[in-house]
Amino acid sequence: MTTKRWKIVIEYNGGAYYGWQKQPDVPSIQQAIEEALYKFCQQKIAVQAAGRTDAGVHAWGQVAHFDLDYGDRSLTGYDLAKAINAHLRPAPISILHAEEVDNEFHARFGAHNKMYQYRIVNRAGFLGLDQGRVWHINRALDAGAMNEAAQVLLGQHDFSTFRDAQCQAKNPVRTLDRISVTARPYDAHGGQEILIEAEAMSFIHHQVRNIVGTLILVGEGKWSADDLRAALEAKDRTKGGVTAPAEGLYLVRVEYNV
Amino acid sequence: MTTKRWKIVIEYNGGAYYGWQKQPDVPSIQQAIEEALYKFCQQKIAVQAAGRTDAGVHAWGQVAHFDLDYGDRSLTGYDLAKAINAHLRPAPISILHAEEVDNEFHARFGAHNKMYQYRIVNRAGFLGLDQGRVWHINRALDAGAMNEAAQVLLGQHDFSTFRDAQCQAKNPVRTLDRISVTARPYDAHGGQEILIEAEAMSFIHHQVRNIVGTLILVGEGKWSADDLRAALEAKDRTKGGVTAPAEGLYLVRVEYNV
Repeated sequence: MTTKRWKIVIEYNGGAYYGWQKQPDVPSIQQAIEEALYKFCQQKIAVQAAGRTDAGVHAWGQVAHFDLDYGDRSLTGYDLAKAINAHLRPAPISILHAEEVDNEFHARFGAHNKMYQYRIVNRAGFLGLDQGRVWHINRALDAGAMNEAAQVLLGQHDFSTFRDAQCQAKNPVRTLDRISVTARPYDAHGGQEILIEAEAMSFIHHQVRNIVGTLILVGEGKWSADDLRAALEAKDRTKGGVTAPAEGLYLVRVEYNV
Repeated sequence: MTTKRWKIVIEYNGGAYYGWQKQPDVPSIQQAIEEALYKFCQQKIAVQAAGRTDAGVHAWGQVAHFDLDYGDRSLTGYDLAKAINAHLRPAPISILHAEEVDNEFHARFGAHNKMYQYRIVNRAGFLGLDQGRVWHINRALDAGAMNEAAQVLLGQHDFSTFRDAQCQAKNPVRTLDRISVTARPYDAHGGQEILIEAEAMSFIHHQVRNIVGTLILVGEGKWSADDLRAALEAKDRTKGGVTAPAEGLYLVRVEYNV
């Protein structure tokens, strides 16, 4: 028995893909990586990710695992990453790191913290350089008010208000460990970039995007922090704001206990 | 006589364009803006930029000017920018700012300082998210050594070693006011981003890209600062390094005395 489990860290531009998960007839990140693995070792290997990012969502640090039988030959993480990358090119997907892990390691069920970033460009002018990478909002947003209100979401809650109808999780209760909203200059003419960061052990489907779409109401001055709390407590998706577009969302990192 | 001169600040992703300058049969930034202006006012208006960026080069703050006869109607910079942007969409070009200027204002000849940035991602793994926006180099680079050596280029020099054969400037002498090379983490697995910034009143053709391509030799440890100085003093393009790819270059801002 020479099968070994590998953990990989993956960066990708989700713009050209129908999300992480393999589906018939459309390109997916998972399929691209599995095909690259097949070219490398002629084995059909299933790759399991920490989180199944949606169509258009990007990753700076997605994590996945798979089992590979490489016989008695030695294989370093560096060489494995290099080989997969060679077969992935020119796809906008890069294996940043590969390491052999214990057979108990599970990218999805073993994760104890995930961090997402959501990028908004807030200015009148349309996007030049960052099309497909941020959400453009031209109405002025108050990032300070968004940050203050967002803190009512901290801790353990039933997040049904921010849960997509197609969410497959049995339970809408999650524990949000950190959420922050910060602003910085984006261009030299008053445009600002608003960065929303959220950390939790796990998220329900569309949770970050639905939270962002709702925080916009606070940023526009239409909602107070109390309104946000009332929406959360309603446990009703129709009480929340819009689903922010996928293209502004980045899975930044996934942490494990080992 | 109701013609007024306007200054505009433009952000663009140069990846899909054959550079700033209008040419037959290929898309250019200039043509896209002139066509948008035509749709707005039904006038064929020539737009003059501060610098004619090459194919693939990006801009966070290109500046241009043009003359527009809008009759006696009032027109604010905000409304003009908005109107041009509406006609530009969905092109990755955005007018960030428009203002009426004196008829003496000239985007190219009036500029007293231009700042370019050049972005390198230095790591083993290929590019995921930043394809078309940075130069990927997998051999390890020493940004500190590059920064130290780069200072020999400061001041007034004959920059023929860094001048493209097609450069139309009469004189290869330029004054480099600032150059810096800095590094920062790019990913969580040792990848670094190296940022080169250069400021001057004006540059000769490919000057920044040729300097960057030569500084790489220093970063790799093949060249010392003295080697760079000798290359500069040779005033001979064949003594310099490669031309760095266009996609890592950004025209960040252009300054005027008024």
